[in-house]
Amino acid sequence: MSKEYNVAILGATGAVGTRMIQQLEQSTIPVKSLKLLASSRSAGKQLQFKGQPITVEEATPDAFNGVDLVLSSAGGSVSKKLLPEAVKRGAVCVDNTSAFRMEPDVPLVVPEVNEEALKNHHGIVANPNCSTIQMVVALEPIRQAFGLKQVIVSTYQAASGAGQSALNELKHEAQDYLDGKDIQEDAQILPTKGDKKHYPLAFNLLPQIDVFEADDYSHEEWKMIHETKKIMLNDMDAGDIKVTATCVRVPVLIAHGESVYFTVDDPTVTVDQLREVLQGAPGVTLQDDPAHQVYPQPLNAVGKRDTFVGRLRADAENPGSFNMWVVADNLLKGAAWNTVENAECLVKDGLF
Amino acid sequence: MSKEYNVAILGATGAVGTRMIQQLEQSTIPVKSLKLLASSRSAGKQLQFKGQPITVEEATPDAFNGVDLVLSSAGGSVSKKLLPEAVKRGAVCVDNTSAFRMEPDVPLVVPEVNEEALKNHHGIVANPNCSTIQMVVALEPIRQAFGLKQVIVSTYQAASGAGQSALNELKHEAQDYLDGKDIQEDAQILPTKGDKKHYPLAFNLLPQIDVFEADDYSHEEWKMIHETKKIMLNDMDAGDIKVTATCVRVPVLIAHGESVYFTVDDPTVTVDQLREVLQGAPGVTLQDDPAHQVYPQPLNAVGKRDTFVGRLRADAENPGSFNMWVVADNLLKGAAWNTVENAECLVKDGLF
Repeated sequence: MSKEYNVAILGATGAVGTRMIQQLEQSTIPVKSLKLLASSRSAGKQLQFKGQPITVEEATPDAFNGVDLVLSSAGGSVSKKLLPEAVKRGAVCVDNTSAFRMEPDVPLVVPEVNEEALKNHHGIVANPNCSTIQMVVALEPIRQAFGLKQVIVSTYQAASGAGQSALNELKHEAQDYLDGKDIQEDAQILPTKGDKKHYPLAFNLLPQIDVFEADDYSHEEWKMIHETKKIMLNDMDAGDIKVTATCVRVPVLIAHGESVYFTVDDPTVTVDQLREVLQGAPGVTLQDDPAHQVYPQPLNAVGKRDTFVGRLRADAENPGSFNMWVVADNLLKGAAWNTVENAECLVKDGLF
Repeated sequence: MSKEYNVAILGATGAVGTRMIQQLEQSTIPVKSLKLLASSRSAGKQLQFKGQPITVEEATPDAFNGVDLVLSSAGGSVSKKLLPEAVKRGAVCVDNTSAFRMEPDVPLVVPEVNEEALKNHHGIVANPNCSTIQMVVALEPIRQAFGLKQVIVSTYQAASGAGQSALNELKHEAQDYLDGKDIQEDAQILPTKGDKKHYPLAFNLLPQIDVFEADDYSHEEWKMIHETKKIMLNDMDAGDIKVTATCVRVPVLIAHGESVYFTVDDPTVTVDQLREVLQGAPGVTLQDDPAHQVYPQPLNAVGKRDTFVGRLRADAENPGSFNMWVVADNLLKGAAWNTVENAECLVKDGLF
C-alpha cells in the first residue's frame, strides 16, 4: 500500500485556506489525517473535510508534531515563525506566503514551469504570488517553443487577492454606492492593510497593490519581476528575460486579468504558431476566437484550476512581439490549487 | 463687440450631449442662441442652459439653418448624414463620433497636442476617441521634450464609454449580483451594441471594446493606434512612433485608466525629468507621490477636465523606457470637454 500522509493546513479559515481544504479533497494525495490550524481567534470553529467535521486548532509549534505535510496560507509573519518549527518536526511545507520566496535554498515552484526545482527543497517549497503564477503558466510554453526576451505586463487584480475581508469590503462599498451613500468611509483595508491611507475600490481603480518600494514600483510589481525570473531562470535578478509590471486593483471579486506584451527570440513566429503551442500546454485553456467573441473573463474563470489565455495578437510594427490576455482564479491557480499541486508533485516525485 | 454664435448640440440628451451643455455653459464661447437636437424620440424634452429651459428639437437638415457651430455626439451614422447638411448651411462642426476621424481633410484634434491642425478644417473637426485623447495629452509633453519611439498601452475603460445605457446596465447588474441573482440575462448592451453576444460587466472584465477587425485587434485598439499617429504625426499610418494597444472594459462607471509603457528617444532621461515636464504641461495634473499614496483614481477624476498622470517609473532593464498610469473623465476630456475646447480654439484662433 502506498504511503499516506498526515496533513496540516495553516490558515485554514481564510479565503485561500478554505479553498486548500476543497483542493485537497479533490487531490491525488493520500490523506491519513488532516489538522486545520489557525489563530487562537479561529480555534474551535468547525470545518468539513470529505464530509467529516474537523475542529480548528490553534497554530502552535507543537501542533505540527506528527505532521508530514503542511499547506500554509496564514500570512508571512506566521509562516516565518511556524514553518521552521514544522520542518524541525519532520514536515515538508508548501507555503503560499511571500515569507521564503526569495530565499536561495527555497524552490519557488509552478509545476507547469519548473517542477524539477522541487528536488532542491530543504523542507520548504514556496508558492509564487498569484499574479506571477498565471502569467508564467501562459508564457512558459511560448518560451519553450520560441524563446522569450521581454515581458511588459499590466494587471487587473481582484479584491480577493487581499483576502476575504477585502472582498467583503468591495461588496459593502458597491452596495453603499448603489444606495447613493458616500463610500470613502467604507475603505478600511484596500489598497493594502500595510499602508496608511485607504481608498474605495467599488467602481474605482487602485494602482497600488502592496506597499511601494524605493524605486516607486509597488511590492507586487517587484514580485512579478523577480519571481518570474526566479521561476523561469532560477535567478531572481537574471537579465536574460527583461520584465516590467504595472499592478492595478480592479472592482472584481475573484480572478485576475493580465494584459501581457511579450517578445520572443524568433521574429518570424506567427499568432497561429503561438495558438498551436498554447492549445496543448499544461494548465492552459485557450479561449481565443474573437470572431465568436470568445476570450477569457473573470466570471467564467472562478472555481477553475486552469489559466485562460486569449486575445493573442501580433504587434505589426515589432516582429516577434505580441499582446495577450490572461485570466485565472487567483484563489485557486493563484494560491490554493498551485499549493496543493506542488504537494501532489512532491508526493508523485517521491520527494518526501 | 465680439461675434456671438448660434450653437447647436446634436445628440443633446445623451451622456456626452448633456455634458456638452454643461461644458458650453462654462466655456469662453459667446453663445447667442442654443439649439438642442436629438432623435424624434427625444424631441419635446426640456433641458436647461444657463438657467433657461430649452426644448429639444428633432435633428433634421433644416434644423441647422442659421447655425454657426455644431457640437455633435449622436452616433457615427447620424453625424455622417447630418453634418454635411450643417456644413452646407454654413456651420462649422466639431464631431465627437468616429464618422470623419480618418478622412484626410478632417483635422483630428486634441488642442493640447495639435491645435494648429484646426487651421486645415473644411467645416468639420473630429474629436478623437476617449481613450486616445487622455493618452496623447499625457504623452505629448514627453514627446516634445525627449522624443517618442514606442507606446504599449493597456486600457481600463469605464462603462459610460459605451453610453448612458451601458452605465445603467452596469449599475443594474451590480445590484442584481449583490442580491444573489444570475446576471447573465442582464447583459443586453456590453461589450458592444454592434456585436452578437452580450456579457455582464459587473465584477467582471471584458477584453472587447467595439467589434473585432481582421487582425483580431478590436476597433477600439485600432483607433488608439491610428488616431495617436494622426494626432501626433499627422499620418494615421506613420511608423515614427510605434503604437500597440489592448483595450479592456472594467466595472467602473466614469473615467478611464490606462497603463502606458513608452520609450523616448533619449535613453538618459530620468523619472524626475519626466515629472518636471508633466508638472507644467497643459491639461495635465501630475498626481505622483507614491510615498504618500498619491496617484490617479477614476472616482477622483470624475467631473474634472484635466488628465491625471502618476505612477511614473523607469524600466530598469530598458534605459529610456517608462511606465505610467493615466486617468481622465472619459465623458469630459474624453468627449464633451475636448469638443467644446476645440470649439473654443476655433473661436480664439478666428477659424470661422
